[in-house]
Amino acid sequence: MQFTSEQRLDDGVVAREFTLGEIPGTLWTPGSAAPVPLILMAHNNGLPKSQPRLVARARQTAASGYAVATIDAAGCGDRPRSAAEEQARADLRRAFQTGEPVDEIFESLVGPLVEKAVPEWRTTLDALLALPGIGGPVGYSGWTALGIRLAVTDPRIAAAGFFAGGFVPRAQRDEARKVTVPLLFLLQWDDEGNPRQRALDLFDAFGSKEKTLHANLGGHTGTPWFEAEDAGRFYDRHLK
Amino acid sequence: MQFTSEQRLDDGVVAREFTLGEIPGTLWTPGSAAPVPLILMAHNNGLPKSQPRLVARARQTAASGYAVATIDAAGCGDRPRSAAEEQARADLRRAFQTGEPVDEIFESLVGPLVEKAVPEWRTTLDALLALPGIGGPVGYSGWTALGIRLAVTDPRIAAAGFFAGGFVPRAQRDEARKVTVPLLFLLQWDDEGNPRQRALDLFDAFGSKEKTLHANLGGHTGTPWFEAEDAGRFYDRHLK
Repeated sequence: MQFTSEQRLDDGVVAREFTLGEIPGTLWTPGSAAPVPLILMAHNNGLPKSQPRLVARARQTAASGYAVATIDAAGCGDRPRSAAEEQARADLRRAFQTGEPVDEIFESLVGPLVEKAVPEWRTTLDALLALPGIGGPVGYSGWTALGIRLAVTDPRIAAAGFFAGGFVPRAQRDEARKVTVPLLFLLQWDDEGNPRQRALDLFDAFGSKEKTLHANLGGHTGTPWFEAEDAGRFYDRHLK
Repeated sequence: MQFTSEQRLDDGVVAREFTLGEIPGTLWTPGSAAPVPLILMAHNNGLPKSQPRLVARARQTAASGYAVATIDAAGCGDRPRSAAEEQARADLRRAFQTGEPVDEIFESLVGPLVEKAVPEWRTTLDALLALPGIGGPVGYSGWTALGIRLAVTDPRIAAAGFFAGGFVPRAQRDEARKVTVPLLFLLQWDDEGNPRQRALDLFDAFGSKEKTLHANLGGHTGTPWFEAEDAGRFYDRHLK
């Protein structure tokens, strides 16, 4: 893991860009030297790790006593895309706009993205836990499909917060019942791109004994500010 | 309003029993003299105002800086019941046990209970707001059907937390869209007595621009402790 830049922010948080082989990432840590738990914050596959809403959430979380890390996994964010991936993304956008069925296009794009992202996130997790000042336990926050796969395959994940979840590849829908860590499932009631009933069915399917659904009125980007605080308390209960 | 007993509890909260005509009630206030907002805490119609879970929640809420009041409205809690009400309650219990359709029995029992409870709660609210140390604004917490009716008819209600809501009389299902105050709708995902889909449909129907659903795994009485804290923050946002 090579750190390529370091910035001390006015809330005392240190933001460091890193690369790990081909993987570009960002690590936010609180100013203090004491070991802190780690939260892996994974964005929706189409958005870069520099997206302002993710960065704001990461900084806020770090300021409250966590190390927070994100990466652009293969094919995600600013990473190079194959011609086939570009085509599938264009097909998916068009299908959403015209109201064509999206399931098969979604599956062909996002299924492989999840498969390729998981080993990169696990490699990153190995490297992060070897750093001084990051003590675990490990939480996960964000992209539902990736989080399901990580929670099922990596026993270091101790609690997970998922967002949206209306569209999730078949493999992750099928293995949702194998997720057993405490869950906070956050849903926008009128999310244009995530069918509500599918998200509710997914929440129902998780195997976790402690699972909580929070739903709020509004579209995909309309999550109210107080949900960030609620998520903070969820992680505090399970990681601190 | 006649106070009939007063008890200072070890968390500084003062619990006073009162009667207002035929209505028996309890008022919990924090130790301090400064005016505080008021929360009306209404239990499920079958349970008395002395029910330990309600009392614990009322004390905790009062200790955090609220006046909290509850009453046994006509036909509810320990108030006398007519022979017809006793019969309807017995019919309802039997129907739940045997799996017979409950809608008509429920309607015939709970529809009139809500109608009779609303004026008693409003009279109580008048009397409470005339007391020194209770400044408003006013929140509501608990029994969904009564809360809908109160929120639609009494503009003093500024925020409402509803619990369960699978079974709600027809009149209140129909007027749910007229509820416009900020809402926190708390649902137990596996509530034996409250069909999940009906509760979700009710949440969808409310007219409020700010409405939040919290759902947790488990049966009717299995609400996790952290939901009481979440409710506290909801009221703090809207009443303080």
